[in-house]
Amino acid sequence: MSILIENTCILPLTGCDSTIENGYLIIEDNLIKEMGRGSAPPAEYLRVIDGKQKVVMPGFINTHTHAAMTLMRGYADDLPLMEWLEQKIWPLEARLTGEDVYWGTMLAILEMIKSGTTTFNDMYFFMEDTARAVEQTGIRAVLSRGLVGVGPSAEAGLEESRELAQRWHRTREERITVMLGPHAPYTCPPDYLHKVIALARELGLGIHTHISETKGEAEDIKKQYGKTSAALMEEVGLFDLPAIAAHCVHLSQTDISILKRCGIGVAHNPESNMKLASGIAPVPELLEAGIAVGLGTDGASSNNNLDMLQEMRTCSLLHKVNSMNPTVLPAYQALEMATVNGARALGLDNEIGSLQPGLKADLILLDLNSAHMRPVHDVVANIVYSAQAGDVHTVIINGQIVMENRKILTFDEDQVLEQAEKTAVKLASAHNSSN
Amino acid sequence: MSILIENTCILPLTGCDSTIENGYLIIEDNLIKEMGRGSAPPAEYLRVIDGKQKVVMPGFINTHTHAAMTLMRGYADDLPLMEWLEQKIWPLEARLTGEDVYWGTMLAILEMIKSGTTTFNDMYFFMEDTARAVEQTGIRAVLSRGLVGVGPSAEAGLEESRELAQRWHRTREERITVMLGPHAPYTCPPDYLHKVIALARELGLGIHTHISETKGEAEDIKKQYGKTSAALMEEVGLFDLPAIAAHCVHLSQTDISILKRCGIGVAHNPESNMKLASGIAPVPELLEAGIAVGLGTDGASSNNNLDMLQEMRTCSLLHKVNSMNPTVLPAYQALEMATVNGARALGLDNEIGSLQPGLKADLILLDLNSAHMRPVHDVVANIVYSAQAGDVHTVIINGQIVMENRKILTFDEDQVLEQAEKTAVKLASAHNSSN
Repeated sequence: MSILIENTCILPLTGCDSTIENGYLIIEDNLIKEMGRGSAPPAEYLRVIDGKQKVVMPGFINTHTHAAMTLMRGYADDLPLMEWLEQKIWPLEARLTGEDVYWGTMLAILEMIKSGTTTFNDMYFFMEDTARAVEQTGIRAVLSRGLVGVGPSAEAGLEESRELAQRWHRTREERITVMLGPHAPYTCPPDYLHKVIALARELGLGIHTHISETKGEAEDIKKQYGKTSAALMEEVGLFDLPAIAAHCVHLSQTDISILKRCGIGVAHNPESNMKLASGIAPVPELLEAGIAVGLGTDGASSNNNLDMLQEMRTCSLLHKVNSMNPTVLPAYQALEMATVNGARALGLDNEIGSLQPGLKADLILLDLNSAHMRPVHDVVANIVYSAQAGDVHTVIINGQIVMENRKILTFDEDQVLEQAEKTAVKLASAHNSSN
Repeated sequence: MSILIENTCILPLTGCDSTIENGYLIIEDNLIKEMGRGSAPPAEYLRVIDGKQKVVMPGFINTHTHAAMTLMRGYADDLPLMEWLEQKIWPLEARLTGEDVYWGTMLAILEMIKSGTTTFNDMYFFMEDTARAVEQTGIRAVLSRGLVGVGPSAEAGLEESRELAQRWHRTREERITVMLGPHAPYTCPPDYLHKVIALARELGLGIHTHISETKGEAEDIKKQYGKTSAALMEEVGLFDLPAIAAHCVHLSQTDISILKRCGIGVAHNPESNMKLASGIAPVPELLEAGIAVGLGTDGASSNNNLDMLQEMRTCSLLHKVNSMNPTVLPAYQALEMATVNGARALGLDNEIGSLQPGLKADLILLDLNSAHMRPVHDVVANIVYSAQAGDVHTVIINGQIVMENRKILTFDEDQVLEQAEKTAVKLASAHNSSN
């Protein structure tokens, strides 16, 4: 199977001067075979895609989400954090079945593909059902069963994680990677983390966790352990493993040094942190330290979408105003965060995140032919500051065309919309009638 | 000419409990004639629009922009403010002709209609050409010739403003309103403002100005006049007139009292203020004081789009994190800012901004049938936090369908894209070759 994309502008994300104004890209099987300026070498191609007035770039990498929470989009907004969690989100989550998680994840994947995301890093439960959705849709994902170290599900969570890894890790043409998902320092005490670490070493898995999301959490950990979350995670040994830490909002300078020293990836979630009023992560400082900072949307109940174009734009604007410096987080850097830096943060940059011969063919075509994308003085600025999800024209993941001219080719969109709506209505009415 | 929209959800923006879940709306000529629950009374309608799985709501009111600056979208980003202005924006603006402004404005109007904006408040020059674009496209606008009180164009600007008002004010079925546009306290000394005030009184016009956009500007005014910009404007008498002040980022508590006392409308431009690192306006405090705060995009060279859905979302998220309080700027309040409060800030709320019998028929249909808009637990939250411009399905302005199923009916989209791109390329290459 070979695909030629011709007559197009290519952003390989291998450096800000690497743009190919008029070029071609050839995909063979699931890999990028070749790319260059001008016309492609004459050959027999199974598919030829005209890339005129479009940009070809790596698909977005959503480095932190809880996909099935699309079911709770708009269910509870503008509330204080604990009221939101205790009275709205947790009671609904307590009712979820595997089938519910499947349809919530299908809705999330539909939204992600439609907005150009080709890989997502997920932490939730009923992950077998999430994996099933990933398998069917053709998207790439990193999956962690969320682990809480207290209560009845602590041991079961480890066992489920082991089964998840055995069944899915590096399967489906390596589209699925499994990690262990110790939820956070405040839900996973050190003794439990030692078990997580042992299991990760045994199975050769990386770690996906939350660190220092809120001020209250940072203060509680300090009170309980006499140190910051980052220092605690280093001491416990979790940070000896390849790991990605979501949020990292409330960090000290020492914490930043720890993340750097341990090679920890960071998933920055600006819109969720804004919406929940968690705070503003020190992203310019993290980038300055050379830490791999990717972007994530977090779940759709605290965002409320899974749109990486919006996340990228908000990231740039937020850090400019927060530092009172308009030169901070320039467009190309935001674009790197959403693609190649996200891949680095997940330890997958030798496979995805940029366009290079030999890497996996995970790429999108963005349409430039609309009012808000004109004129094209600077294609990178237009993508970061002006584009919207609807500009994503075609999505190719692992060499497979999963969306073409905004039509999903790998599953039935209407069925997903219908089933997900039904599931959400069922959950909400069950919860409301029990109140 | 009568239009029936049936089988639809209506958000009249007349109070947060006013949503009509399943209703109809009738337009006669340029006015909303009737709306209600259930089915419309049987009658002969010229057009019947099926509103199923859509929301009908007031069109967005962009309370501050410089439309023709779409020509400079992406032309210069991520630069220090003065370098951006002096080396990039001003030299390009110095080359603009009336024809350039016409095509830049046409591109802006195309983008605005496509993203659901039905009224924009514009300040620029060559305003005859802007008015011509407004006339042809069917959009509603408030137009001010930007006035700078020093230099050769000071008197000419007043004369052009007079002619603009005489030719266009409250014409084209009242779609066009003219205001006077004294640019800012730092470009318009008190003597000049007295002339502006006299002319405004003579012609019965309101005022559109910029106040306290940057910290440097606020400090300079304080140094020069010994008072804040708001206090100066009140003292000079400008605030005795109906006025809308853009930005209002750096305000004291006393300034807020002045704006309230004088009934000044505020155009809040969160994304421009973030991108240029100007600061964060005290919007929760302005709203608390009962001041009419609308939303604006500012020009596309500092945003970089004219998308009011994004502006609304960013506004809510920004003020939540800035106040570290997730209950601040809830979805409905942000929606009011983008519609009915914008109308109030412009003094047009007895004509537009909400859906009520007798008001002008300026409304949009938003499509709910896509992944990022599902499920619909809360339609207002979905619009504010999840929607994108591409969800705008149909746009009606002054009773005229200007866009239907995303196709513009009043002018040629492709011609606008082509001519605007040509104009932008010409300007940029002339500027680059002179450097």
